[in-house]
Amino acid sequence: MTPLPSVLLEPLVRAALVEDLGRAGDITTDALVAPDTRARAAFVARQPGIIAGMDLAALAFRLVDPAVTLDVRRPDGAAVQPGDVIGHIEGPARAILTGERVALNFLGHLSGIATATAAIATAIAHTRARITCTRKTTPGLRMVEKYAVRCGGGANHRFGLDDAILIKDNHIAISGGIAPALARARAHAGHLVKIEIEVDTLAQLAQVLEIGADAVLLDNMGPALLAEAVRMVAGRAITEASGGIDLASAASVAESGVDLLSAGWLTHSAHVLDIGLDI
Amino acid sequence: MTPLPSVLLEPLVRAALVEDLGRAGDITTDALVAPDTRARAAFVARQPGIIAGMDLAALAFRLVDPAVTLDVRRPDGAAVQPGDVIGHIEGPARAILTGERVALNFLGHLSGIATATAAIATAIAHTRARITCTRKTTPGLRMVEKYAVRCGGGANHRFGLDDAILIKDNHIAISGGIAPALARARAHAGHLVKIEIEVDTLAQLAQVLEIGADAVLLDNMGPALLAEAVRMVAGRAITEASGGIDLASAASVAESGVDLLSAGWLTHSAHVLDIGLDI
Amino acid sequence: MTPLPSVLLEPLVRAALVEDLGRAGDITTDALVAPDTRARAAFVARQPGIIAGMDLAALAFRLVDPAVTLDVRRPDGAAVQPGDVIGHIEGPARAILTGERVALNFLGHLSGIATATAAIATAIAHTRARITCTRKTTPGLRMVEKYAVRCGGGANHRFGLDDAILIKDNHIAISGGIAPALARARAHAGHLVKIEIEVDTLAQLAQVLEIGADAVLLDNMGPALLAEAVRMVAGRAITEASGGIDLASAASVAESGVDLLSAGWLTHSAHVLDIGLDI
Amino acid sequence: MTPLPSVLLEPLVRAALVEDLGRAGDITTDALVAPDTRARAAFVARQPGIIAGMDLAALAFRLVDPAVTLDVRRPDGAAVQPGDVIGHIEGPARAILTGERVALNFLGHLSGIATATAAIATAIAHTRARITCTRKTTPGLRMVEKYAVRCGGGANHRFGLDDAILIKDNHIAISGGIAPALARARAHAGHLVKIEIEVDTLAQLAQVLEIGADAVLLDNMGPALLAEAVRMVAGRAITEASGGIDLASAASVAESGVDLLSAGWLTHSAHVLDIGLDI
Amino acid sequence: MTPLPSVLLEPLVRAALVEDLGRAGDITTDALVAPDTRARAAFVARQPGIIAGMDLAALAFRLVDPAVTLDVRRPDGAAVQPGDVIGHIEGPARAILTGERVALNFLGHLSGIATATAAIATAIAHTRARITCTRKTTPGLRMVEKYAVRCGGGANHRFGLDDAILIKDNHIAISGGIAPALARARAHAGHLVKIEIEVDTLAQLAQVLEIGADAVLLDNMGPALLAEAVRMVAGRAITEASGGIDLASAASVAESGVDLLSAGWLTHSAHVLDIGLDI
Amino acid sequence: MTPLPSVLLEPLVRAALVEDLGRAGDITTDALVAPDTRARAAFVARQPGIIAGMDLAALAFRLVDPAVTLDVRRPDGAAVQPGDVIGHIEGPARAILTGERVALNFLGHLSGIATATAAIATAIAHTRARITCTRKTTPGLRMVEKYAVRCGGGANHRFGLDDAILIKDNHIAISGGIAPALARARAHAGHLVKIEIEVDTLAQLAQVLEIGADAVLLDNMGPALLAEAVRMVAGRAITEASGGIDLASAASVAESGVDLLSAGWLTHSAHVLDIGLDI
Repeated sequence: MTPLPSVLLEPLVRAALVEDLGRAGDITTDALVAPDTRARAAFVARQPGIIAGMDLAALAFRLVDPAVTLDVRRPDGAAVQPGDVIGHIEGPARAILTGERVALNFLGHLSGIATATAAIATAIAHTRARITCTRKTTPGLRMVEKYAVRCGGGANHRFGLDDAILIKDNHIAISGGIAPALARARAHAGHLVKIEIEVDTLAQLAQVLEIGADAVLLDNMGPALLAEAVRMVAGRAITEASGGIDLASAASVAESGVDLLSAGWLTHSAHVLDIGLDI
Repeated sequence: MTPLPSVLLEPLVRAALVEDLGRAGDITTDALVAPDTRARAAFVARQPGIIAGMDLAALAFRLVDPAVTLDVRRPDGAAVQPGDVIGHIEGPARAILTGERVALNFLGHLSGIATATAAIATAIAHTRARITCTRKTTPGLRMVEKYAVRCGGGANHRFGLDDAILIKDNHIAISGGIAPALARARAHAGHLVKIEIEVDTLAQLAQVLEIGADAVLLDNMGPALLAEAVRMVAGRAITEASGGIDLASAASVAESGVDLLSAGWLTHSAHVLDIGLDI
Repeated sequence: MTPLPSVLLEPLVRAALVEDLGRAGDITTDALVAPDTRARAAFVARQPGIIAGMDLAALAFRLVDPAVTLDVRRPDGAAVQPGDVIGHIEGPARAILTGERVALNFLGHLSGIATATAAIATAIAHTRARITCTRKTTPGLRMVEKYAVRCGGGANHRFGLDDAILIKDNHIAISGGIAPALARARAHAGHLVKIEIEVDTLAQLAQVLEIGADAVLLDNMGPALLAEAVRMVAGRAITEASGGIDLASAASVAESGVDLLSAGWLTHSAHVLDIGLDI
Repeated sequence: MTPLPSVLLEPLVRAALVEDLGRAGDITTDALVAPDTRARAAFVARQPGIIAGMDLAALAFRLVDPAVTLDVRRPDGAAVQPGDVIGHIEGPARAILTGERVALNFLGHLSGIATATAAIATAIAHTRARITCTRKTTPGLRMVEKYAVRCGGGANHRFGLDDAILIKDNHIAISGGIAPALARARAHAGHLVKIEIEVDTLAQLAQVLEIGADAVLLDNMGPALLAEAVRMVAGRAITEASGGIDLASAASVAESGVDLLSAGWLTHSAHVLDIGLDI
Repeated sequence: MTPLPSVLLEPLVRAALVEDLGRAGDITTDALVAPDTRARAAFVARQPGIIAGMDLAALAFRLVDPAVTLDVRRPDGAAVQPGDVIGHIEGPARAILTGERVALNFLGHLSGIATATAAIATAIAHTRARITCTRKTTPGLRMVEKYAVRCGGGANHRFGLDDAILIKDNHIAISGGIAPALARARAHAGHLVKIEIEVDTLAQLAQVLEIGADAVLLDNMGPALLAEAVRMVAGRAITEASGGIDLASAASVAESGVDLLSAGWLTHSAHVLDIGLDI
Repeated sequence: MTPLPSVLLEPLVRAALVEDLGRAGDITTDALVAPDTRARAAFVARQPGIIAGMDLAALAFRLVDPAVTLDVRRPDGAAVQPGDVIGHIEGPARAILTGERVALNFLGHLSGIATATAAIATAIAHTRARITCTRKTTPGLRMVEKYAVRCGGGANHRFGLDDAILIKDNHIAISGGIAPALARARAHAGHLVKIEIEVDTLAQLAQVLEIGADAVLLDNMGPALLAEAVRMVAGRAITEASGGIDLASAASVAESGVDLLSAGWLTHSAHVLDIGLDI
């Protein structure tokens, strides 16, 4: 998994540490642990899953004390089983205890997203479809949540309102229909900007195909309708199915032949992956 | 619910908007919607739940365009049923479409936390116990996630490493036992700082009670053991049960007589509350 | 011209004011001008050109004193002739004198870019080509410089390293050739990410066309070679000509039939548009 | 050339990298280049000029990856000819490709300013005059643009509204004349704050000399008038000529005997110096 | 003294350096001192006192130039006499001269607070009372000023409005009396939040004791009245005396038997400790 | 007194509020005061002094709640006697109680500096000397502390290392003497940058006068020696006396005929002015 450069990650970790350390630091550890005590600890998986966020975890310790070292055993993107050691850290005990929660908050949250993504990816591995995320992300964490989706084997959708055009039902309604909406979008889009449009019916899809679009978002269609839509598209656009995609439904949706399944819950409602720090 | 002052909320919403608007703004809306188009929309609940985050949602629109007005019908802390209108917004259509996702990302995330909290609170309403959160929060959002817990009828635990002492098993081990740990904690704590200590057994609890502490965290004890612990404490300390608290277990844990149930998943793994913006 | 939301512009203007006001504010104006003096002033064009940046100019005054009002006569994207009044401002004389330089620095710089862009756009208006910018922008100002290009009638290229794939000669060399480079790019690109690849020769172009790409960057080819390349592409990819595009060469390059001309100097070396503030 | 401390430069480079890396990083390089590939590259001048900004360029790479090393051959202030190697960089190929554009954007922009400054400085080297910049700088970059002027052999004018008094025509008009303007300025200025005043005519200059000022800005006077003004001043104030100073006019203006020539275009309209990174 | 983690200190020092270096850096040193000149210097106490702030002083130099090393002889919390060397620094002469004032501004200010605190602590050492600070701190420096109080042997009061409840006279008045105020406070306070209430009379104190509170602030009572109050409290609450505590009055106030003396002037009006940097 | 623009003040007040409100806001007021309670309060002087900082105080309330209004009766620079009402505020009781401490921390600190400055200014009013501050300011507050000195009738010295040259003893030693130091300074200084040099003896002063400087800092000389120095200077440079200036010594120092007295304690050790907020 290609890591994000630390110039992008550092501000997130600094803010999280400031949030946790407040105005007095870790008063428990400072009171109880002598400054020269050293410790060794292991990040251990308590659940099966996929790891994401080790760079952020490492930064959480290093920004408290550069003397902490992290030896990664399961890098981002690796699968773990309960009991697996993800990495060893070693250094001043105070720094390890102080940085622990911020490290685990990042690691658990992002590994949870990677794990949820991987579960869907596995369920649809026999199809041509890939699982992708949405803009339904946690405020402030989009960059790293999208990264966690990649760690889980998923693909990324738009990163923001600015890097692709996605015409939704409200846009169509305000624009006066699919045709004028697509025309205006095409007129304004830069040459490296793709256009995707949401359709709810095959009739709408037919309209879109007549005009052309890079991708169509087939919203809330059942597998049979999706399969029909895929046939209609016939490779002229990327097809994305959305609405109600979960572990139970993913395979049958993917078997319709669509290119992509998208699911907001990967980033907004995935459970954290339970990871502990054993000292 | 006492709102947080906007001097605290504004930086979060500004950052979320910058994250979503990127370097070109909302290129779809800008291409498709005329600047003078006005719109009216309603936040509508699609699930039963408890609302939290309306101030953040309102800021998301107002910071895009101050001309957007939000008329709140169900304020933070209110219960909603599917179909309930939470608030009406009105103003330039562009601003409403552009601010929608950031508004919903905050509102859904925080209402999800409030809803999860309220479910537990309801389940234990016949007992003296209250549900409380932990420091297992989403990096960058602790302040508002803790606020959402309050909206759901929960109580707040520590806000950071700096505002209370919480002695955990690792601290005890490094300190050489419960007695020296409590002694050092007491020696360092300011007069307005409370001390809580984690115990795993009744033997440890007995040691704590001999020395005294403001609160004891009874970790991973079953209801019967908890009841025994509560009897031993006999009002001399606040009792908090943690470990495996969920909707199924909460009532039996609370019926043990403890003062508090704490659960990290309220803030790190609650599902978003499904809320839509109907234009 | 669709304005950028002020939540994106405000930080730029605040930083520019802080940079100019330093630690003591405008000591000349404070010493010489009584606080209750009011003034009226006009932004007047001293050269023909295209306006860009009026929102930033307005913010420069309003952030010094909200009592200053700006009445825009020539909005962003409008053409002006020497002597044309672009807008009137009115308010406390101190704020007008204090905000003047920051306002003009933004307005002159961005209008200069818009003017340069428009000159090329006019020169190639008889062709199907459009003029586009690059990532050769002034550090910190990319968002508004790209906006200024749009004001001048140009199109935007990538906004950063993250929103499209552009495979350059160095990438090809390190990847071991065009084929593996395109294959890896396609394997990694999200479904809304387009792929453009630079070619220097028709032989390279032939390779690209065999594999397929969304766009080809035809680097440093003369008009004749470009025309041949356009014929080869035959509509299968967007064609972009780069290298040595200026006002003298633009028409002949565009007449080759390419879709786009790109020029870094629009954003990094355009002359400011000379605009004065007449009080 | 005395470098600026990196505590001042780092925020600029971090912001520029964040601006370019966006929310996904360098997706082209990450897709195409293996993480363990190393590269060596050289900054090579493609035009004659003066270098400025090597510290910023070095930071651009180091903040992407500290493993990149830069061996500077032509430090800031040095003259280069086409083909000259300015510095060698070596390190992970990814970091070199990812940091390249930000490094070159700073280096080209600042070297362009240094080069323009040096051209004027050379043209007036036979006189006692020096070339100086103004507050007509690019928003956010004043500190480094003023530094680039120094690299080119120029002198710096005011850094902001707060570090010297410069009384312009509007100030004089609002103050009721030169005498009251100078009197108020003198009364308010700290003992280390100099006072400069703009004059358009010899009559105004006579008034100023009667009262006294540290410097006079002789605006839009031709060489003959300037020479007359210099004679009138007779060393009692620093003389600065402004208005229409360019490479063609500089020598004749300087030969009038003035101390300083000032030109806004050095910082707002200089062409970038064309520098390439050859890998 | 447990140091604050540098992730908390660095932003303060960076801001102070930017404030002092402005837009051109240290123009005196840059003009006069050759870049390769090295220097050795010693922080020397010119007054007796207690040291606080060495980490901030060290950062002030290191952020100007990482090549500066600081060898601490008297760490934070240590007592010094006039002439004592607190630490030696060595490195490039420019960096030492440039960082000197920021380093001394932090060190003198915080050591002044530590020294004032220690003076009171010494004066009351024969009693059970401790000296504590308030929220009357210098804006922006609360975290480090509270740390300096700890260095001087004092205890910390609340760090902000959010980490403890302190019911003052205005709150009581608006709440309709002590009883409703305490009731509401108790109902809202988290289980780790203590409640303190201000009383001006013994009658008020009796009311408080009837209901219970963690601490009582005995405001502006003389020693005799305080002694009576302590007797009334009889260990049921922490007792804090405030109002007019200074070096002259501290002992007699403390001898009343109160637990705490609080004084705002420790943080808002302590004299700096005179420390020089001898090169 | 010319106020600083709020674009400069707002960041300071926002940071101070965030520092005080922490992660939960004002939990006391929120628990005790109903949201619709309104209050009226008065800033009342408890000591004689000079006011500085009313704009910051007003911002402290307005940033908590824009509904708070402040009616200023004694603006910055005005003298107050005990009991004088400085301003009335009115608005939501919660906002008034929540903003009170931040408002008073700014107001007390800056009024303390203004008051100390005014005391010296009064003591030397019969002379030609003025009192001025130094760079010995509180980190982060230099801009407003220098402003407070102006409110007290004092003059400002340098604002940073970058806006004037001040050659101190260490610079002279490293430069190899007064002559080379002044020569290098003159060679590097911009035309609006003044040069001041510190001398300890009349012999050094003679050397300086031979070469010329804008100002001389006469360090630690008694009144007689100062008078001799002033005679030697004979108006050829501004004379500044420093070292041991306090209320007792100021008049005799000023009577020596120097232009300026400088004192670091004005900004680093002045007592706060005691101001209360009576509700």
